[in-house]
Amino acid sequence: MRIVIALGGNAMTSADGRATPADQQSAIQQAAEPIADLVLAGHDVLLTHGNGPQVGNLLVKNELTAGHVPPVPLDWCGAQTQGTIGMLLLNALDAAFAARGMERPTAALVSRTLVDAQDPGFANPTKPIGRYLTEESTRPLVEQGQSFVEIADRGWRRVVPSPAPIDCLDSASAAQLMDAGFVVVCSGGGGIPTVREADGRLTGVEAVIDKDLTAGLIAQQVGADILVIATDVDSVIADWGTDRARPIGEVTVDEMHQIAAEQGFAEGSMGPKVAAVTSFAESGSGIGVITSLTKIAHAVDGEAGTRVVPASTLHPAH
Amino acid sequence: MRIVIALGGNAMTSADGRATPADQQSAIQQAAEPIADLVLAGHDVLLTHGNGPQVGNLLVKNELTAGHVPPVPLDWCGAQTQGTIGMLLLNALDAAFAARGMERPTAALVSRTLVDAQDPGFANPTKPIGRYLTEESTRPLVEQGQSFVEIADRGWRRVVPSPAPIDCLDSASAAQLMDAGFVVVCSGGGGIPTVREADGRLTGVEAVIDKDLTAGLIAQQVGADILVIATDVDSVIADWGTDRARPIGEVTVDEMHQIAAEQGFAEGSMGPKVAAVTSFAESGSGIGVITSLTKIAHAVDGEAGTRVVPASTLHPAH
Repeated sequence: MRIVIALGGNAMTSADGRATPADQQSAIQQAAEPIADLVLAGHDVLLTHGNGPQVGNLLVKNELTAGHVPPVPLDWCGAQTQGTIGMLLLNALDAAFAARGMERPTAALVSRTLVDAQDPGFANPTKPIGRYLTEESTRPLVEQGQSFVEIADRGWRRVVPSPAPIDCLDSASAAQLMDAGFVVVCSGGGGIPTVREADGRLTGVEAVIDKDLTAGLIAQQVGADILVIATDVDSVIADWGTDRARPIGEVTVDEMHQIAAEQGFAEGSMGPKVAAVTSFAESGSGIGVITSLTKIAHAVDGEAGTRVVPASTLHPAH
Repeated sequence: MRIVIALGGNAMTSADGRATPADQQSAIQQAAEPIADLVLAGHDVLLTHGNGPQVGNLLVKNELTAGHVPPVPLDWCGAQTQGTIGMLLLNALDAAFAARGMERPTAALVSRTLVDAQDPGFANPTKPIGRYLTEESTRPLVEQGQSFVEIADRGWRRVVPSPAPIDCLDSASAAQLMDAGFVVVCSGGGGIPTVREADGRLTGVEAVIDKDLTAGLIAQQVGADILVIATDVDSVIADWGTDRARPIGEVTVDEMHQIAAEQGFAEGSMGPKVAAVTSFAESGSGIGVITSLTKIAHAVDGEAGTRVVPASTLHPAH
């Protein structure tokens, strides 16, 4: 089967941004192991990944060196992390394949995601990025047009637009390489946010695209059978933190819509993951799965994870 | 014909590193125009590029923020510039094709270049990178293992290993995409320097690979008919700076070897360009060309530039 897997940025480094390059390399080597098992089992894999902590570090560098070298915008930061994480994943996958006695070619693509310049996200930045600042240190940045929100007891944090992904512009090269047997790394960090200008030109834009929503889109565009959002829990938990807490197993699209409405999964966390797998299953493309890295193979086989399936899969009579 | 073109890092930004992201975008848009003309003329193009000024900026950020976020090594810097320059080239090529009424898919690959861990370059770092420092400010860096050379009247500059490229590890994906009609960006900055460890694993390494030598190698690996090194002169000049200065036109491999021995072209400048095109022609793969961006189409047609041809092309009787 053709499987798209989205790896969390935190699976590849510590969230506080203090991970050294060697730490990140080591974390990515671990993440490559279950992926290689899936490939060994005969599946075709496209891998996408988050980049939050990595972009956080680049923003600190921007801030502290603005008087010395020109700062680079968020689309550049995203592109930079596609380079570094792409390189680490290529090396890690190659090693994990070799350890299993397999030869499978790998490729990592610099990849852009089209968003609508009129997306309401641009007028209302909501996605927090980078480190916590004092109110005073935000002032020069606010003058440059940046937006900040205060987060209780922690300080002020920059918020940026998080527009919806509408087209993975480089999905054709990804599909071409998958067709030729490559394991492909693509659309890292949700893809480089890109708008089409009035004159038709494509240009990068200051935004952050939710990597899980992009994963759902690229999964449709390359014709995946399964979309797996890999996170730090084996399944989505209903009634989290109560004595009725229970894992969600296999559910239909309609059931997941109802559960999501009841549960109100957190925005910027489980919310977009549930939205991505549900929307993927709803499109009729395949099955959407949320699980942990170590449970991926079981979840693909239907034995673990939260699996959102088209109604027809459970109830052929419909 | 299948053509590999190497763009200089300085063609895409000012050498002093003060170019803003918008300046770089604009320079790359200009560079894309003659490339698009070649594609319009029916040629298949793989584009590679330098990244010296861009890596210089990343090194300044490393230096100035080392107390706040972990510095990243040179292989990471190279990977970062493949992301940003790749993105800019994709957008610029797409626009230049659209302006010509063409539809041609584009792709940019994160790409590694294998070097030998025993390359003598590692024992004897010679490639100057980054900004000029005072002797005093080099001291803590020397303690961390970095090497510096003094350059008269300008200060101290870091020198790093510049090992020879031996395999473009991602040439298979580049060739696959070219076969499918894509215009491909690949091996930027000479490719991410990578060694094979004793246990077989591939790992990035602190080095800089000459982008022209890598261009010659990737040209062979994808079966190019022509390798073009685009630089700031229309032809290589013999006896530069004397009253016998004259452009070198079409010459055989043997003639170019002789000219190079007589002229002693500068290392780190015209030297590797001449070596790359000569070695490409010598391999029997095709014709090696050095010319300016604006003369590329003429040079491909045999009407401009310095062209190094296999002996048999000029003298079929041999």
